[in-house]
Amino acid sequence: MNVTVQGRTRHYRTVTFDRARNAVRLVEQRLLPHEFKIVATRHFRETAAAIRDMVVRGAPAIAATAAYGLAQGALAFRGRSLEKFTRHVGTVCQALKAARPTAIDPVNAMNLVQAAMCPGKTVEERQALALAAAEEFAAEDVGHCAAIGRHGVKLIRNGMSILTHCNAGWLACVDIGTATAPLYAAQAQGKKFHVFCDETRPRSQGATLTAWELAQQKMSHQVIADNAAGHLMQRGEIDLVLVGSDRTLGRTGEVTNKIGTYPKAVLAKRHGIPFYVAIPLSTIDWHLKSGFDIPIEERCESEVLGAWGVVTNPKSEIRNPKSDKRVYVRVANRTSGARNPGFDVTPPELITGIITPAGIFKPRELWSERRRLGFAR
Amino acid sequence: MNVTVQGRTRHYRTVTFDRARNAVRLVEQRLLPHEFKIVATRHFRETAAAIRDMVVRGAPAIAATAAYGLAQGALAFRGRSLEKFTRHVGTVCQALKAARPTAIDPVNAMNLVQAAMCPGKTVEERQALALAAAEEFAAEDVGHCAAIGRHGVKLIRNGMSILTHCNAGWLACVDIGTATAPLYAAQAQGKKFHVFCDETRPRSQGATLTAWELAQQKMSHQVIADNAAGHLMQRGEIDLVLVGSDRTLGRTGEVTNKIGTYPKAVLAKRHGIPFYVAIPLSTIDWHLKSGFDIPIEERCESEVLGAWGVVTNPKSEIRNPKSDKRVYVRVANRTSGARNPGFDVTPPELITGIITPAGIFKPRELWSERRRLGFAR
Repeated sequence: MNVTVQGRTRHYRTVTFDRARNAVRLVEQRLLPHEFKIVATRHFRETAAAIRDMVVRGAPAIAATAAYGLAQGALAFRGRSLEKFTRHVGTVCQALKAARPTAIDPVNAMNLVQAAMCPGKTVEERQALALAAAEEFAAEDVGHCAAIGRHGVKLIRNGMSILTHCNAGWLACVDIGTATAPLYAAQAQGKKFHVFCDETRPRSQGATLTAWELAQQKMSHQVIADNAAGHLMQRGEIDLVLVGSDRTLGRTGEVTNKIGTYPKAVLAKRHGIPFYVAIPLSTIDWHLKSGFDIPIEERCESEVLGAWGVVTNPKSEIRNPKSDKRVYVRVANRTSGARNPGFDVTPPELITGIITPAGIFKPRELWSERRRLGFAR
Repeated sequence: MNVTVQGRTRHYRTVTFDRARNAVRLVEQRLLPHEFKIVATRHFRETAAAIRDMVVRGAPAIAATAAYGLAQGALAFRGRSLEKFTRHVGTVCQALKAARPTAIDPVNAMNLVQAAMCPGKTVEERQALALAAAEEFAAEDVGHCAAIGRHGVKLIRNGMSILTHCNAGWLACVDIGTATAPLYAAQAQGKKFHVFCDETRPRSQGATLTAWELAQQKMSHQVIADNAAGHLMQRGEIDLVLVGSDRTLGRTGEVTNKIGTYPKAVLAKRHGIPFYVAIPLSTIDWHLKSGFDIPIEERCESEVLGAWGVVTNPKSEIRNPKSDKRVYVRVANRTSGARNPGFDVTPPELITGIITPAGIFKPRELWSERRRLGFAR
């Protein structure tokens, strides 16, 4: 996507590989939206740390980072012994896997890279194959997102207002994004529309990341409190809801996504507003049989009890472009605790369609279409 | 309600009158939850400024403040001319009315005080009658809240988890509160239950004021993101929803309350969870014929784009009792704007009952019971 830094606009991907320096280059997402910075990790352990410390986040983006990290580790190997090389690659995989132990996407990505290396007869050949496979993985992610955009763009008509939740944008992928892909495709076709970004408490990814992305793309948008969507729907101000997913059950059509997605789906149903989920195929879980089996992560209380931001004068000028250090402020009463579930599960009857790179499906069609959607057995 | 400051517990009302000093004493609500402080206004213009600057907020609390402010202004008059006194009282009323021009409760309260003064034959008599009427108004507010508590307490059973939204607690009234009154009554009866406080973005009155009140009453509670209630309802963790209202339509049973109330009502209906609204009778608007006629205030963008809190280390100790200065932090992307509707309207079919000082009613029963509920014509 295009990013304008100090007046100059350039195209960036969230994750790229610098072959000359054997470095993975990442957008430092923890500084956004207050500062845009590319960081380079020079060693696979640094890449693992970047995943662990959330320099990079979003399932497709960390999968590509892990694929590149594995290639980076392989390329750093000096010697000719295939046996020692294989042991080394195992160590690299372990380090990258341990960085985000519950995520499935980086493991799948590294399995692909490892499988691609096998035919190589020398260390050098395997190194080259590893890098080629990582590059292919990243390119495929871009292709999948573009395909989501091509299918989803048909849902967007001139004059629409579209509600999004959290960030399923290019920052979560290698480029383009999933839930945002139809928006970018519609913009490219010259369609005019407006986006409401749920701020998405407690981590505020809508207000920080999605709003920043849309501003970079010069797309008409406004941030709203998570509380406001019901009122806007009631007054006819929302025409379409577009969200991403962290895990979609292939057997049932249930969609796990950031906390607060389910209430929006319930409201959309009540108001007859189409509710779409955009996902790459890697988000589909073909094994679990019920949404109640999905473990819902309870995150730390401090996220709910406070907020991260830059100290500002609210009256003078909130659009002051000066970048500054983020601090944590305690908002809530100091002697109170919090509950902080990170995700919720939306049942299929509330979902109008699931936009995939292979087309748009009803949530309950995923299972009958499973061979087309790449389910192996 | 009881408040513990530096280890000492004392009973406080939100608004009281200090006759010796002719001063209105108010809880300085803008400092909460980080600091508890009583401030005194020594002149009716200072009292008006306290209303305008939100030292005191919540319809019943500002109504009592205006009643006391009027008595304060009357008592400050020196002289024997009834004519000059009456002109002076008019000036006092104007100043207090202008402090919060859209609120109806302070106007009604001041009308009562003015009517009570009329029989007085001397300035001194009228001054005494004004103060007595203001004290009676405040006492009646306490009585109304206690009656709401007596009716609402029947809804609370041992082991329940109760969701609240925003603050309709004692800070919004003279004492006890409206939506919180049944909680305090249940606690007094020894019932055991847990309260989830919606943080209530963008102004976070749930995380700040309600959580602080419940902590002061040593009531089991946790703050949740506004996004979390859907998930908790889905998993059977919420048994009852209790909210307040800023304006309830007597003709239709529609309830206006803080933004985010309507989505909770929609979710409660879906999950078969009782949804109750607690109000004093002064909250009923007998004139408007449709919720769509209620003007929904659009508040300033900065509320949505940032947050107010005390700079804290989130990891070290979030329960550090040290009081400190609140700052505003910009959370959202600096080049993005926001929409900020302040209220929403919940239709009667989503409301199980309306708890009033006169009993619990179905929302559509208000109109047929209007004479019992004090509607004059």
